[in-house]
Amino acid sequence: MLEQLKSVVYKANMELPKHKLVTFTWGNVSGIDRERGLVVIKPSGVNYEKLKPEDMVVVDLEGKKIEGNYKPSTDTPTHLALYNKFIEIGGVVHTHSPWATSFAQAKRDIVAYGTTHSDYFYGNIPCTRAMTDEEIIGDYEYNTGIIIAETFKDKNPMDVPAALVANHGPFAWGKDPMEAVHNAAVLEQVAMMAYYTEAIEHIWSSNTTQAHPIPQKLADKHYYRKHGPDAYYGQIN
Amino acid sequence: MLEQLKSVVYKANMELPKHKLVTFTWGNVSGIDRERGLVVIKPSGVNYEKLKPEDMVVVDLEGKKIEGNYKPSTDTPTHLALYNKFIEIGGVVHTHSPWATSFAQAKRDIVAYGTTHSDYFYGNIPCTRAMTDEEIIGDYEYNTGIIIAETFKDKNPMDVPAALVANHGPFAWGKDPMEAVHNAAVLEQVAMMAYYTEAIEHIWSSNTTQAHPIPQKLADKHYYRKHGPDAYYGQIN
Amino acid sequence: MLEQLKSVVYKANMELPKHKLVTFTWGNVSGIDRERGLVVIKPSGVNYEKLKPEDMVVVDLEGKKIEGNYKPSTDTPTHLALYNKFIEIGGVVHTHSPWATSFAQAKRDIVAYGTTHSDYFYGNIPCTRAMTDEEIIGDYEYNTGIIIAETFKDKNPMDVPAALVANHGPFAWGKDPMEAVHNAAVLEQVAMMAYYTEAIEHIWSSNTTQAHPIPQKLADKHYYRKHGPDAYYGQIN
Amino acid sequence: MLEQLKSVVYKANMELPKHKLVTFTWGNVSGIDRERGLVVIKPSGVNYEKLKPEDMVVVDLEGKKIEGNYKPSTDTPTHLALYNKFIEIGGVVHTHSPWATSFAQAKRDIVAYGTTHSDYFYGNIPCTRAMTDEEIIGDYEYNTGIIIAETFKDKNPMDVPAALVANHGPFAWGKDPMEAVHNAAVLEQVAMMAYYTEAIEHIWSSNTTQAHPIPQKLADKHYYRKHGPDAYYGQIN
Repeated sequence: MLEQLKSVVYKANMELPKHKLVTFTWGNVSGIDRERGLVVIKPSGVNYEKLKPEDMVVVDLEGKKIEGNYKPSTDTPTHLALYNKFIEIGGVVHTHSPWATSFAQAKRDIVAYGTTHSDYFYGNIPCTRAMTDEEIIGDYEYNTGIIIAETFKDKNPMDVPAALVANHGPFAWGKDPMEAVHNAAVLEQVAMMAYYTEAIEHIWSSNTTQAHPIPQKLADKHYYRKHGPDAYYGQIN
Repeated sequence: MLEQLKSVVYKANMELPKHKLVTFTWGNVSGIDRERGLVVIKPSGVNYEKLKPEDMVVVDLEGKKIEGNYKPSTDTPTHLALYNKFIEIGGVVHTHSPWATSFAQAKRDIVAYGTTHSDYFYGNIPCTRAMTDEEIIGDYEYNTGIIIAETFKDKNPMDVPAALVANHGPFAWGKDPMEAVHNAAVLEQVAMMAYYTEAIEHIWSSNTTQAHPIPQKLADKHYYRKHGPDAYYGQIN
Repeated sequence: MLEQLKSVVYKANMELPKHKLVTFTWGNVSGIDRERGLVVIKPSGVNYEKLKPEDMVVVDLEGKKIEGNYKPSTDTPTHLALYNKFIEIGGVVHTHSPWATSFAQAKRDIVAYGTTHSDYFYGNIPCTRAMTDEEIIGDYEYNTGIIIAETFKDKNPMDVPAALVANHGPFAWGKDPMEAVHNAAVLEQVAMMAYYTEAIEHIWSSNTTQAHPIPQKLADKHYYRKHGPDAYYGQIN
Repeated sequence: MLEQLKSVVYKANMELPKHKLVTFTWGNVSGIDRERGLVVIKPSGVNYEKLKPEDMVVVDLEGKKIEGNYKPSTDTPTHLALYNKFIEIGGVVHTHSPWATSFAQAKRDIVAYGTTHSDYFYGNIPCTRAMTDEEIIGDYEYNTGIIIAETFKDKNPMDVPAALVANHGPFAWGKDPMEAVHNAAVLEQVAMMAYYTEAIEHIWSSNTTQAHPIPQKLADKHYYRKHGPDAYYGQIN
């Protein structure tokens, strides 16, 4: 059943290593059939090289396995909580991509500094609060989804299709599994650039000695040995 | 028409993923036929894997589409403004390459620190001022080109063939599309090295504890187990 | 002899360049046959491209070569010390992977900041004390293993299957050679994310000017030119 | 003539892109035949993809071209100065590899922090003083070699087979062209790790808030859902 969705979810999962968003098996993508209320998700701990479309697992919105040879991803209850809370979304992805995870570990939002961010995310990408001990000891994976939803109580999840879970890593979503993965890849890129934007500003506004520019005579030498009438670099004469 | 220029613009666009200057479709290259006053540019939002020479779009200098099955790049008016203002240039490229974009987001010039920079750029690579709300609400993409030209009012654009647009990212240019892409790749490289140059100086001139060198006995042990008469590393005896 | 273990040790060694954990010949993996008290290890200074299963060297737990055409890795006595001290382990790996080595050179533990770390390591990954001159001048490679064991005197090595040797680099281990390599790859990943976690927090909590977010009008422009009823980016109309 | 040396120099040049030490044509390797007093070097500004063994240029120690269809590398006089001053060396390489170049632009030595460095370099890798205007305006490329030799007046160039030229980039050498390239690759790696070693120490010893470790309950949850009797991650039951 759901062969078409299994194929899409399989392909979306295979995009994760291609975009260098996962190491080993640290990622999973799911997709939902809203009409039937069924979710297709990657099996737990299976290598990407060995993954096949028919390995995808079908579960219902309460997490009961409907079809599949494998156990579904350990993070399945988080995906289900997101599908329950965010009714517009059709695909969810979780990774431990390094830049987004570093922000999650520092418990900092990814601030919108530029148009790359704003092309996809309307405002900062938020980091959740830390979970309480009760939430961790209890239904941990489901509560991970609930705490993301709590973080979005005043936000439309389609306007900011990703969140960082404190001390853990990113979740992203979209209208379908492929868009979710696309958003996860953009998230990683804007996280990296947010870090360097902050680092550049930090260095410039610190009360430390600045690096010195190249001496003018040396700049002249190098520019004019390659450009203009007296250039002597390369084979052109 | 302009089959030769389409082929060049196509090839120049395909250089962008090769030099890791683009993620998804975040980049575009154009070339101009100055005699006919026509510009060839990449279509908007088309994947690099699917791009073909015949997909290139021809527009005139007012932005009217002359030929092509697709809409031209959304950034076309920026390219046209640059061709109008910088009469020496024959190719323009826009990317969101991460190092140049991070400097653009921090609104900082890329300072010339070394000969790699001076081999291609005569002086700092400037960042534009922020756009006014009016410029953004108005003809935004065209105004992006105008603000770059304003930044170069006292500079020859052929001496410094690139600029950073504040909160956005880099534009580069050259005598033809391939040279523009070459300059965009150099820009990314010198941005990265400028960052690390500033970071090294910042760390050294900060009033913090310095890292400690390797103890001398350990350095001796490792150097002399590989070099000299008593070496015992590897298969050489 | 031990053809099966040689094959496993060979494959585990070949995983090192695949995971980008080694440059040139700077790494080695071994495995132990506990019943026979024999260890199979990579030969010293042989290129990974030329390595073959039959090149693996067999030594006993005192370091005597039992079989093989080559000298065993220079680091063999460190592996042997670890097998002697940590009786649960079945595989050992040493690399100079850059992130773990940088922490080793700074003589800092890798702090557990997130779930990626805690999925594999129960607590911080410790860095050893510096070796004394006597330990360096004496049986240096064996003492390297002893000092790792000393660092674990109150820890179960299976709970934290890696250590950093001060001013040197990482060693990792596991129940077999493949698990040791897996742990070495995870170590490198969590070291990188620990660094960025600390750097993000450092920048945010420094008394320096913060980078400025994108102006709201520019964010609106970019978000709405791609999303919603007035979007004009891409080929969709 | 010198077909054997041409082949070696060609192969050594082709190692530069393989080790990601060059962008475009920013690098060159040479080798010397000490008996004949002749040097074989890469031609100036030729792409690595198009380079052939027979394109190598032969010059004498005064820089006179003896054989070859192309102009020799613009940096040839620097290589010749090094061969004249360092009589033990048989190969020289120049690159703009990013980490070494960043240290050169910051005009800082690469401090020996660990055994990776000490395996190849006995002591810090020095950065030259800045050149005077006279040295730049005069025989610039030759003076670049002279200033490196001046930096080594109290050092054996075979003990520290590389130097950074201030505001420019690295030169490395060895007993032959392949060893020179090997040393250039090691230089880049130890430069990167020296930077991160210094950055880690800087962050830890700064008077800023430290990042917080993962809460213990969350660490327990993740470790024990993968390890021990109650593990439920993956397919193993």
